[in-house]
Amino acid sequence: MSAVTLEAVPDKADLRVARDTSNTTAPTQFLKVGNETYAFRRFGSGRGQPPLLFLQHFTGTLDNWDPAVTDPLASGREVILFENAGVGRSTGEVPNTIAGMAKHALAFLGGLGVSSVDVLGFSLGGMVAQQIALDNPSIVRRMILVGTAPLGGEDIMHLDKPSLARHLADPKLQGYAVLQKLFFAPTESSQAAGAAFVARLLQRTQDREPISGPAVAQAQMAAFRDWEKFTGQRFAELESLPHPTLVVNGIYDEMIPVQNSYWLSANLPNAVLLTYPDSGHGSLFQFHESFTRHAEAFLASDSKFAPY
Amino acid sequence: MSAVTLEAVPDKADLRVARDTSNTTAPTQFLKVGNETYAFRRFGSGRGQPPLLFLQHFTGTLDNWDPAVTDPLASGREVILFENAGVGRSTGEVPNTIAGMAKHALAFLGGLGVSSVDVLGFSLGGMVAQQIALDNPSIVRRMILVGTAPLGGEDIMHLDKPSLARHLADPKLQGYAVLQKLFFAPTESSQAAGAAFVARLLQRTQDREPISGPAVAQAQMAAFRDWEKFTGQRFAELESLPHPTLVVNGIYDEMIPVQNSYWLSANLPNAVLLTYPDSGHGSLFQFHESFTRHAEAFLASDSKFAPY
Repeated sequence: MSAVTLEAVPDKADLRVARDTSNTTAPTQFLKVGNETYAFRRFGSGRGQPPLLFLQHFTGTLDNWDPAVTDPLASGREVILFENAGVGRSTGEVPNTIAGMAKHALAFLGGLGVSSVDVLGFSLGGMVAQQIALDNPSIVRRMILVGTAPLGGEDIMHLDKPSLARHLADPKLQGYAVLQKLFFAPTESSQAAGAAFVARLLQRTQDREPISGPAVAQAQMAAFRDWEKFTGQRFAELESLPHPTLVVNGIYDEMIPVQNSYWLSANLPNAVLLTYPDSGHGSLFQFHESFTRHAEAFLASDSKFAPY
Repeated sequence: MSAVTLEAVPDKADLRVARDTSNTTAPTQFLKVGNETYAFRRFGSGRGQPPLLFLQHFTGTLDNWDPAVTDPLASGREVILFENAGVGRSTGEVPNTIAGMAKHALAFLGGLGVSSVDVLGFSLGGMVAQQIALDNPSIVRRMILVGTAPLGGEDIMHLDKPSLARHLADPKLQGYAVLQKLFFAPTESSQAAGAAFVARLLQRTQDREPISGPAVAQAQMAAFRDWEKFTGQRFAELESLPHPTLVVNGIYDEMIPVQNSYWLSANLPNAVLLTYPDSGHGSLFQFHESFTRHAEAFLASDSKFAPY
């Protein structure tokens, strides 16, 4: 792991960019915008590329970003891992709508002085990514939407259904062991990938975020329920998102089933879909070498078209 | 275009490999196996890679392979374009089942002395590819299935439905102009890609194959109707195909809708799905740069897993 050094950001003297290149060691930083202070990590470097904003899943903190995904991507660009209001060490109330979360993310980007980003939204974060692009189309260059759903999608994070509830109710499973069951398919190969994922998350031993409690879960779950509702023509919002988009999903995703990714890629005007076999919600972590290679190729393109 | 030279194949002195690198100029060759003589083209070169067998669409001949797809792939391996029985200058009756077509393809490979291939099957050819892998699992290393369907798929090549029939019945459309309408989406960008595709096919001016007539169409259409039928558990055959597979489709495919690719990738145990926006049945020709990049990366992998 490389040493951490801090440098002044040219356009914002009070902010610092960590020239670290790993989410295992990058320091958590804080940015005050309006009434809130947002926790984030920012590392990596690249010339002429917008930074890549990471938007996190249900109850996840900065510590839930797999370094096997963040770090290779940080070799070609800055990555910014953002913690939304009320999560981890970010202040404020957790919004109970996706729109509320998008507002915080946009306020944060404004505070950072970033006017163009690529966005990688995973699960809940993928919904926030879509909302950001709807609310401020010009700030988003390219989007990667993993294991997520369009507004009006279905079977979004119903933790009470048997395939998920059995893991959540299992007293033998604690902490990240639950994630391993929920994010990975029930095959030997996928569970092995899940164990490796957990081991990578645990490599970060200092400067960790507090784990999310029931208040975070409750508000975010309300946002999921709200996101399943739609009025008028289903998926009509997606027509307003011409941004080149890469949609990614594991074929056995029980948390936000792959049908939602089919709808995204079929209704977004400019999206490539990539699905992975033998994997669930956490396909990007299971196939991190493939995923980062695809993400890198997709983000490296300057075309107005999604195919890469 | 490079000059054509012929060299003896080491293991089959009576066959010749064209060291040309383009389907625009590679000579059509002929191989007699049993009672039939098969027309084919073989070009390109690569060390340590199995050849890539191209299996063609409904009524297509060797001349329907876009050099923008065949030629880049031939830079890293031999490609073999195969003309099934009764098509073009291949002798015999056009089989009216996919199984019959697979038998001819396997006889051809046997005659060539090829014991391991990668297969790129497009549309009808994708069904033949699956059948080959079912009938002789060990001969297939990796498969690319484009714009095709599993056994028991639906809405396969119903040329009488309005979205297709209107082009087939249009007296203003002749020859390749029909293909442009049928294979590409009704957007300006997709139709422009279709016009470029047609122009590339027309670059080959000599040694062309005869165009397929009604007898070819009738037998192949019977094979499609047969392929839609299934008995027992739907898609159960796919479990017997562990070969690393890349499934590709355009999102607006009217000839073999993308739902069939969803079924393929969700039921094959080891398949990655890639879908393209703004494109129809001929997505591989529309996004030939992207497609050949993905195909090349997929075929270059030695992993037993499909993700690349």
